Amino acid sequence: MDHLYEKTTKTTEIFKGRVIELQIEEVELPNGKTSTREVVKHPGAVAVIPITKVGKIVLVRQYRKALDKVIVEIPAGKLEVGEDPLDSAMRELEEETGYKTEKLEFILSFYTSPGFADEIVYLYATDKLEKGLSQTDDDEFLDVLEVTLEEAEQMVNNQTIHDAKTAYAIQYLKMRELKKP
Amino acid sequence: MDHLYEKTTKTTEIFKGRVIELQIEEVELPNGKTSTREVVKHPGAVAVIPITKVGKIVLVRQYRKALDKVIVEIPAGKLEVGEDPLDSAMRELEEETGYKTEKLEFILSFYTSPGFADEIVYLYATDKLEKGLSQTDDDEFLDVLEVTLEEAEQMVNNQTIHDAKTAYAIQYLKMRELKKP
Repeated sequence: MDHLYEKTTKTTEIFKGRVIELQIEEVELPNGKTSTREVVKHPGAVAVIPITKVGKIVLVRQYRKALDKVIVEIPAGKLEVGEDPLDSAMRELEEETGYKTEKLEFILSFYTSPGFADEIVYLYATDKLEKGLSQTDDDEFLDVLEVTLEEAEQMVNNQTIHDAKTAYAIQYLKMRELKKP
Repeated sequence: MDHLYEKTTKTTEIFKGRVIELQIEEVELPNGKTSTREVVKHPGAVAVIPITKVGKIVLVRQYRKALDKVIVEIPAGKLEVGEDPLDSAMRELEEETGYKTEKLEFILSFYTSPGFADEIVYLYATDKLEKGLSQTDDDEFLDVLEVTLEEAEQMVNNQTIHDAKTAYAIQYLKMRELKKP
């Protein structure tokens, strides 16, 4: 893949925040010319598809400052430094929804915005939920909802659910349903 | 949703680049306390699921500096200022793959990283492809591949396809296949 590779010749740190870092990389392109790339560094994240005993999906409603609006998502959160994604997923599930589990199935991971950021999301699912202890971060406010798959699909259609990981999750559940004999 | 809303009390511009802008927002939380939010502004993007006459999916292989690796994605690109997403999708499809179309079906839009960025992706699909003119941007290098759905699913499993929009697209095609009578 050498004919696609871009060699970084200089990295300039622009910002180091609580969540992200920003750096500018000067690169040498495959044709020998130069360009710059704006790169956001992110610690990575986890997300969980939690299904209750009666088959409802547990979702969280949350205000997102980047969008300046309230959207509905599957429970998710940033990885702490050095934290295993599986542990992180169990922690975020319980903190955000008040449900805990001892069994999470890994579905897949994906980069969310490869054009400018290295954020990766590790996606898990579980239908083995027990009552746990809800306790959000100091600066985190959210509502928990439990909806049927049909309701979740409507929320995708009317853009109440409007983010990639949650749209993927709902489609995943729908596909699983279609595959059932 | 007032009990979730965070009021911005001050915005500090940190960086304004070719692709993204970064700003820090000081916010008043629902409980009256204060916090800061790191927000990446992005112009938005389009992506297309192109299907050839023989049912293959057209993909592009590209080096992504943010990930420091080569991954395979559906054709996609940033919105130009003031550009209609549909026009942008037609333009990016032709520039990146050399296929053009007069008919794109809108599938859905989603935010890719609502925790820190406002990037939105408008996703389209088409199976009406004609020969067009491949012409990538000056600083863009990519390979075009055409694969079957089964091959694409393997690429998701082995993480050659490893981004959210493309994983969503492959799952979408699989679901459509399962729904066929």
